Amino acid sequence: MPERKAVVVHSGGMDSTTLLMETIRGGMYAEVFSFGVNYGQKHARRELDCAARICADLQIGRVVADLRAAAPCFMGSALTGLGAVPEGHYKHESMKATAVNNRNMVILSLAAAFAQSVGAMAVYYGAHAGDHAIYPDCRKEFYSSCAATIGYATDDAVRLFAPYGAWNKERIVRQGELLRVPWSITWSCYNGRERHCGKCGTCVERREAFRLAGVVDPTEYEA
Amino acid sequence: MPERKAVVVHSGGMDSTTLLMETIRGGMYAEVFSFGVNYGQKHARRELDCAARICADLQIGRVVADLRAAAPCFMGSALTGLGAVPEGHYKHESMKATAVNNRNMVILSLAAAFAQSVGAMAVYYGAHAGDHAIYPDCRKEFYSSCAATIGYATDDAVRLFAPYGAWNKERIVRQGELLRVPWSITWSCYNGRERHCGKCGTCVERREAFRLAGVVDPTEYEA
Repeated sequence: MPERKAVVVHSGGMDSTTLLMETIRGGMYAEVFSFGVNYGQKHARRELDCAARICADLQIGRVVADLRAAAPCFMGSALTGLGAVPEGHYKHESMKATAVNNRNMVILSLAAAFAQSVGAMAVYYGAHAGDHAIYPDCRKEFYSSCAATIGYATDDAVRLFAPYGAWNKERIVRQGELLRVPWSITWSCYNGRERHCGKCGTCVERREAFRLAGVVDPTEYEA
Repeated sequence: MPERKAVVVHSGGMDSTTLLMETIRGGMYAEVFSFGVNYGQKHARRELDCAARICADLQIGRVVADLRAAAPCFMGSALTGLGAVPEGHYKHESMKATAVNNRNMVILSLAAAFAQSVGAMAVYYGAHAGDHAIYPDCRKEFYSSCAATIGYATDDAVRLFAPYGAWNKERIVRQGELLRVPWSITWSCYNGRERHCGKCGTCVERREAFRLAGVVDPTEYEA
């Protein structure tokens, strides 16, 4: 029997890093790969650097699919260059500006392709229940359908799992704390400056999750 | 009401060029875009040149998403560099070497993203019934599921259509002939040499489709 391998969609943020470490520690797989995408996000450099550092510490393989030459697909988002990143809470309507056209389907389909290319049987995706009504491609209906599509496309060679689908971010922080996720080198902020801005939707959510989980937040924020 | 726009997944081959011309001539859309992908296929230069020329003749916009910097996702296919392109009929087992990991899901998800970025409501995909049991991502189960996934991912802003799903290639040639598809500047061959090789699976199928449809084949083959 061949060695079991898995691919984790890994941005370098809190959720996907927790999922990555859980997949490694779970012991089901002989090899676990981190898979990321550069779709021209403003915070690409910081995010990708953090992910690379985490993978180096964990001594696992990391592949980044560079989609910057597919930029016309991802126009029109505050994350890829259109205007400023909005500040405030994710639940706010203004956060819709941070949606990126069909981003998660593109990422998951590439992750499934990468999984096939390395003979991995599973793709893990860190979507969670707090993943926002404003992002249709974070909802359960979406990733359940996506899992079916990947099954058809690969003759069931690759399966998609979203084990945090019913969790909120607070629970992920508690889980990550048990796994000793190196929070200080995870990256959330949509503004890719030297430090987390503390004001954009994902920074607000990051702070809130640490607070609700009762876990010390080691992040240095600008504000 | 905004002007209706559509995106056609267009490789420059016979099927997608027929579909492109039918979508334009159908008159349902004020603007039709041709969308292609460079995933590192050996025949990219010839295929993309043909598609560009067809679009120039039709005076429509063409966008190519360049995925060559995502090459690790597409390793392991005869189309992207692994060994020689097999010769013979598509129905033959050896043709499995030409499958590209999850290629069509990647292409369709990018096409849907591009559709969102230009405000198009529809993506057209030229899969047909002769699209081969060896390619799971050409089957109806796949693209029906993919259509559902795109619907979820985009809040039904983009719909996927595969109007040739029940047709064979012979019927597409007859349809293309009615639409006056410029066959001589369409490209099929998996070997991207100056002329069609005449021997690879897609060349064999191309010749057969012209013959069965009773349409003169203007292609210059090597053999």
